[in-house]
Amino acid sequence: MTVEITGFDWVPDFAKGYVRDLRPRWACEEIGLPYRMRLLSAVAPRPADYFCEQPWGQVPVLTDGGITVFESGAILLHLGEKDERLMPRDPAGRASVQSWLLAAYNSVEPHMFELANITLFAKDEEWAKLRRPSLMADAGARFDRLADAIEGREWLAGTFSVADIAMATVLRLAGDTDLVSSRPALATYLDRALARPAFRRALDAQLADFKPEPVAA
Amino acid sequence: MTVEITGFDWVPDFAKGYVRDLRPRWACEEIGLPYRMRLLSAVAPRPADYFCEQPWGQVPVLTDGGITVFESGAILLHLGEKDERLMPRDPAGRASVQSWLLAAYNSVEPHMFELANITLFAKDEEWAKLRRPSLMADAGARFDRLADAIEGREWLAGTFSVADIAMATVLRLAGDTDLVSSRPALATYLDRALARPAFRRALDAQLADFKPEPVAA
Repeated sequence: MTVEITGFDWVPDFAKGYVRDLRPRWACEEIGLPYRMRLLSAVAPRPADYFCEQPWGQVPVLTDGGITVFESGAILLHLGEKDERLMPRDPAGRASVQSWLLAAYNSVEPHMFELANITLFAKDEEWAKLRRPSLMADAGARFDRLADAIEGREWLAGTFSVADIAMATVLRLAGDTDLVSSRPALATYLDRALARPAFRRALDAQLADFKPEPVAA
Repeated sequence: MTVEITGFDWVPDFAKGYVRDLRPRWACEEIGLPYRMRLLSAVAPRPADYFCEQPWGQVPVLTDGGITVFESGAILLHLGEKDERLMPRDPAGRASVQSWLLAAYNSVEPHMFELANITLFAKDEEWAKLRRPSLMADAGARFDRLADAIEGREWLAGTFSVADIAMATVLRLAGDTDLVSSRPALATYLDRALARPAFRRALDAQLADFKPEPVAA
């Protein structure tokens, strides 16, 4: 039974390579788990029954036999259970992976959501221009702590895990700000993660699935 | 071996009853799991070695024998493993709990973080005043979808679970805005969750642990 992951058949250029099905694709590539994509139109209205699978109408959703999982973080936890190359089997190791995965999703990515708001979606709004300094300061303080924690570690939970897939894909959202690049421990960690062949395969696979133009069907 | 949870011995009034050790306390109260609190000063500098347990210096951290878990979402997952009253044992039920828990932490709470920014921490800033309408609209759209998903369900994953502890404590952060109160499905769900005796015990226990004045030691 091949797992199925939902994605989009086209997105605007700024989102190419950043749609969140990248995260489960990467996990599958790490362990050689075959997966099939179910591509949705990003411009047509979402099929009404899709909201029963994914309450926000977003991607990805993973189906695995009779199991449906939504939210990329939950999907990473689900895939982590399949293989110790994604999540160690011992309780302390599991706890560390789950802690760092939640840290990426709840303590780091929210800053990146607001960064996307001020740099992409609301960039011409007055509030976004006024907000930028305090947001960068808040995010910078959080990134300082993260850099302290990562200093001297190869991977967040000892060995590579879904926590690193989560954190690396979140840090990558810092884009061309200096949030990562000005902190050597973070820049080195992110480079190390993105140099993994499985990341490159996942990225290439997402990019290859986009049609050249949006199709509203 | 009693689990230990970190909290604060005092916080400003606006935070009383909202510090995030409330979440694992609630889970422990649901299953009658004894726990011991380790209370930190919120005004003294955090002990340097605390950052090794919790990279942001925040609470809660849970220790359970030789296992240390940080991030309240990861702690809820850890406690969920202990008892099917917090997380069902079947794979589909687990997947549903994990999906909804991550939804609370990554797709709903980030809006509440920004709400706290504009109403508490940056309320006198010009950007916060200008940001309010779009934030309320974005959060409202997300809450509309959540209300659709919750309509007709007693609990998010069928039976009560740590996903409901996560979502209810996040929705509670909407405070005196109309984000919850204007959506009957959400208001009813939140009332149902907060009417549980275990929630009340957890809340009372947190409030009872605060000293009347801050102590910098």
